[in-house]
Amino acid sequence: MRTLKLTIAYDGTHFAGWQRQPHARTVQQTLEETLQKITGRKVTLIGAGRTDTGVHADGQVAHLRVNHPMPPQKLLRSLNATLPEDVVVRSIRIAPAAFHAQYDAAAKRYRYTIWNKPTRPIANRDRMLHVSAALNLTAMRRAARLLKGRHDFRAFYTDGQSASDTKRTLHSLTISSKAGLIRITAEADGFLYHMVRRITGLLLDIGKGKHPPTILREILRGRGSAIAHTAPAKGLCLMQVRYRSTLA
Amino acid sequence: MRTLKLTIAYDGTHFAGWQRQPHARTVQQTLEETLQKITGRKVTLIGAGRTDTGVHADGQVAHLRVNHPMPPQKLLRSLNATLPEDVVVRSIRIAPAAFHAQYDAAAKRYRYTIWNKPTRPIANRDRMLHVSAALNLTAMRRAARLLKGRHDFRAFYTDGQSASDTKRTLHSLTISSKAGLIRITAEADGFLYHMVRRITGLLLDIGKGKHPPTILREILRGRGSAIAHTAPAKGLCLMQVRYRSTLA
Repeated sequence: MRTLKLTIAYDGTHFAGWQRQPHARTVQQTLEETLQKITGRKVTLIGAGRTDTGVHADGQVAHLRVNHPMPPQKLLRSLNATLPEDVVVRSIRIAPAAFHAQYDAAAKRYRYTIWNKPTRPIANRDRMLHVSAALNLTAMRRAARLLKGRHDFRAFYTDGQSASDTKRTLHSLTISSKAGLIRITAEADGFLYHMVRRITGLLLDIGKGKHPPTILREILRGRGSAIAHTAPAKGLCLMQVRYRSTLA
Repeated sequence: MRTLKLTIAYDGTHFAGWQRQPHARTVQQTLEETLQKITGRKVTLIGAGRTDTGVHADGQVAHLRVNHPMPPQKLLRSLNATLPEDVVVRSIRIAPAAFHAQYDAAAKRYRYTIWNKPTRPIANRDRMLHVSAALNLTAMRRAARLLKGRHDFRAFYTDGQSASDTKRTLHSLTISSKAGLIRITAEADGFLYHMVRRITGLLLDIGKGKHPPTILREILRGRGSAIAHTAPAKGLCLMQVRYRSTLA
């Protein structure tokens, strides 16, 4: 029995998210079925985290345990030759036997992309949010600095899923801007459901001048919520999942 | 009667190229029909040049002459609200009465994008060619330098279309490489049919070591043709059309 660690990229546009579910095309199910076709074994793939419908990944990580002798490089080539064009496995490594893609994840990095120009995007239009209004990046960066660190992110959490502990450590939250393309990159030890998309929604409202950056202080103290928007899924991409070096 | 200059971006994936033709979805036809819907006038749009099926544009230019009082900014907004999501008009300007998008074009710039990594691309996969083999960029750049300047590009020209004069001036031909993304950018006073795609095909063969860069000397002297490949349309994008400053 071997434990394999897969690094996976996908275009979330035509997937109902990562997680297997009945009557829907998901990334997990697509990969599991392809793995079964190649190895002849029924396999279960455990992802580092779920991604929602429409959310993309450049560096999703998943593991499986399988009793099959195929060398990882050969399995990689077979998989990528068989998988549909909107999902690809970037690498397959033999991991320590007990490696668990979800429980062992030390940090995740997400990126939200905004096309901040007057007219609609063409290239990569399924991977960005179009915001034509001028944005005050200075105010957005000031707000981002207030969000960094360990906080109770309850206010950035969408109901419908229970979380006993809503404290997370946001290691970094940066905003880059180049030729009208704005990228919000967030790295944390974990993310609550919709957390990046709600952070983005609030940062955009701050950029448009609807709130001052200092509203973050109120929100993090639990004094009401000014968070009106969950930014659309299509602008979000899971960039990387990090593990302790002994598991990488 | 006014002459309007339009700058247009489109994703060529689901278009049978620029040029209007029966029983096919083309960019010219899509724009003309939308313009007619908005202005109530039957209009003819003249593009700076045709692009093939699958070729993209960031900065195609076209002109039309129309007797309609709508301000350009209002027309721009109406057009972009009505056009399908794979084509957008970036700007509309009132041009000198005699401006002609094709005849007045002084130079065009095309870019070919190559994803040079072991596994398939996901983002922008309809806009790049995947080449997994290692490429010798030094050799490719040496060949590119030999191609620069005024030459008879007959060897880079696909039959099926007559061209009385096959001499063109290639102002620049550069190859950039960053994180496995290779961009070949060509600017010339004009391009023969398939010229950029055949230049790219040959440069890729040189990068793979199938020919030495000096083969360009033989080819430009008309001594046989080693050009075996026309690189696929999907990697190509018309970036910009330049006009003399009095017409810009």
